[in-house]
Amino acid sequence: MKRQSVAFDEIMKFERRYRAALINSLPGIKPLVLIGTSGKGGKSNLAPFNSLVHIGSDPPLLGFVSRPDSVPRHTLQNIRETGLYSINVVPIGLVRLAHQCSARYDINISEFEAVGLELERHEELLQIPFVKECRIQIGMKLRELIAIKSNGTHLVIGQILNIYIPEDYIFEDGSIDHIRAQTAGCIGLDTYVESSLIAKLIYAKP
Amino acid sequence: MKRQSVAFDEIMKFERRYRAALINSLPGIKPLVLIGTSGKGGKSNLAPFNSLVHIGSDPPLLGFVSRPDSVPRHTLQNIRETGLYSINVVPIGLVRLAHQCSARYDINISEFEAVGLELERHEELLQIPFVKECRIQIGMKLRELIAIKSNGTHLVIGQILNIYIPEDYIFEDGSIDHIRAQTAGCIGLDTYVESSLIAKLIYAKP
Repeated sequence: MKRQSVAFDEIMKFERRYRAALINSLPGIKPLVLIGTSGKGGKSNLAPFNSLVHIGSDPPLLGFVSRPDSVPRHTLQNIRETGLYSINVVPIGLVRLAHQCSARYDINISEFEAVGLELERHEELLQIPFVKECRIQIGMKLRELIAIKSNGTHLVIGQILNIYIPEDYIFEDGSIDHIRAQTAGCIGLDTYVESSLIAKLIYAKP
Repeated sequence: MKRQSVAFDEIMKFERRYRAALINSLPGIKPLVLIGTSGKGGKSNLAPFNSLVHIGSDPPLLGFVSRPDSVPRHTLQNIRETGLYSINVVPIGLVRLAHQCSARYDINISEFEAVGLELERHEELLQIPFVKECRIQIGMKLRELIAIKSNGTHLVIGQILNIYIPEDYIFEDGSIDHIRAQTAGCIGLDTYVESSLIAKLIYAKP
């Protein structure tokens, strides 16, 4: 297979947006979620993230990467203040509205109202805003905030407080049927995909 | 929408494998890569990871999560020793072989030989084993190794040394055409998907 080699020095010389598009799309197909938070004033915020990562199952922990604090990051700011947030898995019918939540709205504007998504509350976690249109929702509590020295980003690690999910989306073995849930995927900063099953494989042994 | 609520206490009571299947599949569609390393003795190791995450573009950084050191983790051990590794993006035709690399082979057995994948070397980075069958390959240098206190996992952050990619997989804006590259996605621990395009959207403004 004929490949071109793109070295670090060349990457650093690329125009900023070109480099961002290239590096952000390198990992392949990424998860797409909306993270919901509330500020001290109670204004709800919603932002799309494609950096969600499994940290562990015992206890159940998920992480995501938040960009540097050099410009206002409402999600990170709200999580620092309240320690609480929601992770809402985006289905394919919602990718345009989810993408629109990435626009730089003022802190006084709620993305729920700005883009037209319905805010849902669950009685166990009344302070956390959830996205009603998302079929799979997760209530989270901040557990560890790690500053990444290499570039000033943060890894936000949270513990799962509650999972809200239709019963028939869970297989007998505990895994989630994201094909049935029509969960969307994401490539880079602006490209959205739907998925179809190749295979569910058994535990690999030598 | 009728959803069941699964609280933290219930999650902790689930049988271990059921809980792992549930929590690992929560994020949705995840990237699937093979990470290639060499030990001090020169034996090559290959392991699948679905925790790849974009850390930043300037400089170009990617991260992944490695599980606790309580059982042998050859990938992490080799990266600690050499500071070098490859990230190989898995295409849909390769998911079965990639999955098989997750079996617990002895440290003296190379997964390349065990599962039948071809080891490729690039002259700029001769110490790093790449997977020839993977169309998109990335040479990496360890930059930061972060111990996650919450559960003993590690976030491994590396700087991109070289990207190897067919020229016609890169769009004019710098982003990668993973649909054309037939890049696979992953759900949970054992489920593999292929992706089709929904939309590539323009930069969102309020």
